[in-house]
Amino acid sequence: MIVHLNGRYLADRDASVSPFDRGFLFGDGVYEVVRAFDGELIEAGRHWRRLERSLREVRIAGEKFAAEQMSELALRLLEENGLKRGHAIVYLEITRGSATPRTHHFPPAGTAPTVFAYATPFAPFDGQRINGVPIILAPDERWGRCDIKSVNLLPNAMAKQAAVDAGAWETVFVRGGVVTEGTSSNLFAVIGGVLRTHPATHAILGGVTRDVVLETARASGLTVDETAFTVAELETAEEAFLTSTTNDVMPVVRVDATVIGSGEPGEIARRLGTLTAHS
Amino acid sequence: MIVHLNGRYLADRDASVSPFDRGFLFGDGVYEVVRAFDGELIEAGRHWRRLERSLREVRIAGEKFAAEQMSELALRLLEENGLKRGHAIVYLEITRGSATPRTHHFPPAGTAPTVFAYATPFAPFDGQRINGVPIILAPDERWGRCDIKSVNLLPNAMAKQAAVDAGAWETVFVRGGVVTEGTSSNLFAVIGGVLRTHPATHAILGGVTRDVVLETARASGLTVDETAFTVAELETAEEAFLTSTTNDVMPVVRVDATVIGSGEPGEIARRLGTLTAHS
Repeated sequence: MIVHLNGRYLADRDASVSPFDRGFLFGDGVYEVVRAFDGELIEAGRHWRRLERSLREVRIAGEKFAAEQMSELALRLLEENGLKRGHAIVYLEITRGSATPRTHHFPPAGTAPTVFAYATPFAPFDGQRINGVPIILAPDERWGRCDIKSVNLLPNAMAKQAAVDAGAWETVFVRGGVVTEGTSSNLFAVIGGVLRTHPATHAILGGVTRDVVLETARASGLTVDETAFTVAELETAEEAFLTSTTNDVMPVVRVDATVIGSGEPGEIARRLGTLTAHS
Repeated sequence: MIVHLNGRYLADRDASVSPFDRGFLFGDGVYEVVRAFDGELIEAGRHWRRLERSLREVRIAGEKFAAEQMSELALRLLEENGLKRGHAIVYLEITRGSATPRTHHFPPAGTAPTVFAYATPFAPFDGQRINGVPIILAPDERWGRCDIKSVNLLPNAMAKQAAVDAGAWETVFVRGGVVTEGTSSNLFAVIGGVLRTHPATHAILGGVTRDVVLETARASGLTVDETAFTVAELETAEEAFLTSTTNDVMPVVRVDATVIGSGEPGEIARRLGTLTAHS
């Protein structure tokens, strides 16, 4: 695999960062994951706008990371890795850079951010989409700024592993009685005929696919309400689905031990999945 | 500087980790900072017990990281760096290791954790201790498991930078109306003659110096109460101080615009500072 590191394109085994990089010492960085199909980036504009926002919120100097440069970098990675045909994903991370001595506060002005990116083939989860997936619930113990797409992802990693341990596809978080989102996805439910999902507050990451689905649902005449729902509401929902860049629209058929709707992928999930399909 | 990386001792400029290390991608690791004086580690037993607990809580296989091995590693770093005289600190981080493809869930069983450590000279903050330091308050937006000493430290880094920006020594967090702890320190206050600090719940990191100070205070006949206090209680405290491995006992003389006590370091802080001095 050819990866990008601070302006260079090199083999993954030759790519290395300093252990004094603040990404490694503090998780002090932000990231994006962008899909590509046949060499075209999907919704790149939305991803780079969100990256710009994340950088601004954590105060990493972002002027070097304009959308145009990021797309150029991503397309070059597709090219270098022979990924101009079919499905691929591009991962891009920017940290606050490397400096000694280690300090909690920011490093000296002028410390160059670290830019790391790679592209890899991607196989869409079509099999899972046919039958739908089970999810589990867990308390949302993450920090108060989940709207920032940072690499402080330990709670997400722990919760995703809990899903794997339980034979589930995803863990969805519950905070203050309401469902927030998954470890790396947003959750929608159809409740009383209304398509609902948690509003884009600081408690969730405003997913790119979430936005596309909301716009598509509204345009197609569905009643949409961005208000949080409780676990009890979820359990009695007509249907539910996850959205994310890699999941697209993924029907949820079970929440812990509770079967959702008919136990099969719902009609609205199928329709929105078709309308927003990434290929 | 000679650092330790996965069993090797090498120059810091030659030390590198993979950008696929989960420390870099997820902040998926834990750490400790241990003081040393004249080649002796201070409270090493408590630090390695806490490390063992952190590893267990995040489910990183810890059998290789017994206290004896960790002390050996730390002492070797002091030796390699000519730090057998005077003050030093040893930083040690263990991550869940490196694996591709990147997945939120844990990497395959058998993936070796990454071990990184360095030792560096340390100048105790004696100047600050003479006059005491100002602190600022900020909402505690960190996750719900602050008892785990993980490298998911973005909120801590942001809040410490806010202190620097304000000309303060530390930012102390407030959650649900009560004071929790600093970005890298615990906070004590003497309120109505009672020495108080937040209890060691999941909301704070149980500091090694915090424990030593509590034991010393009790042994010296002070009335100690591990119950959280409000901002209003802190503002009317007779005195306040921070504790941490690098701060030792650091008197606090101002909280935002409010002068604490006489505005000079308090008697109890001075006494506990002397009794627990690390050298």
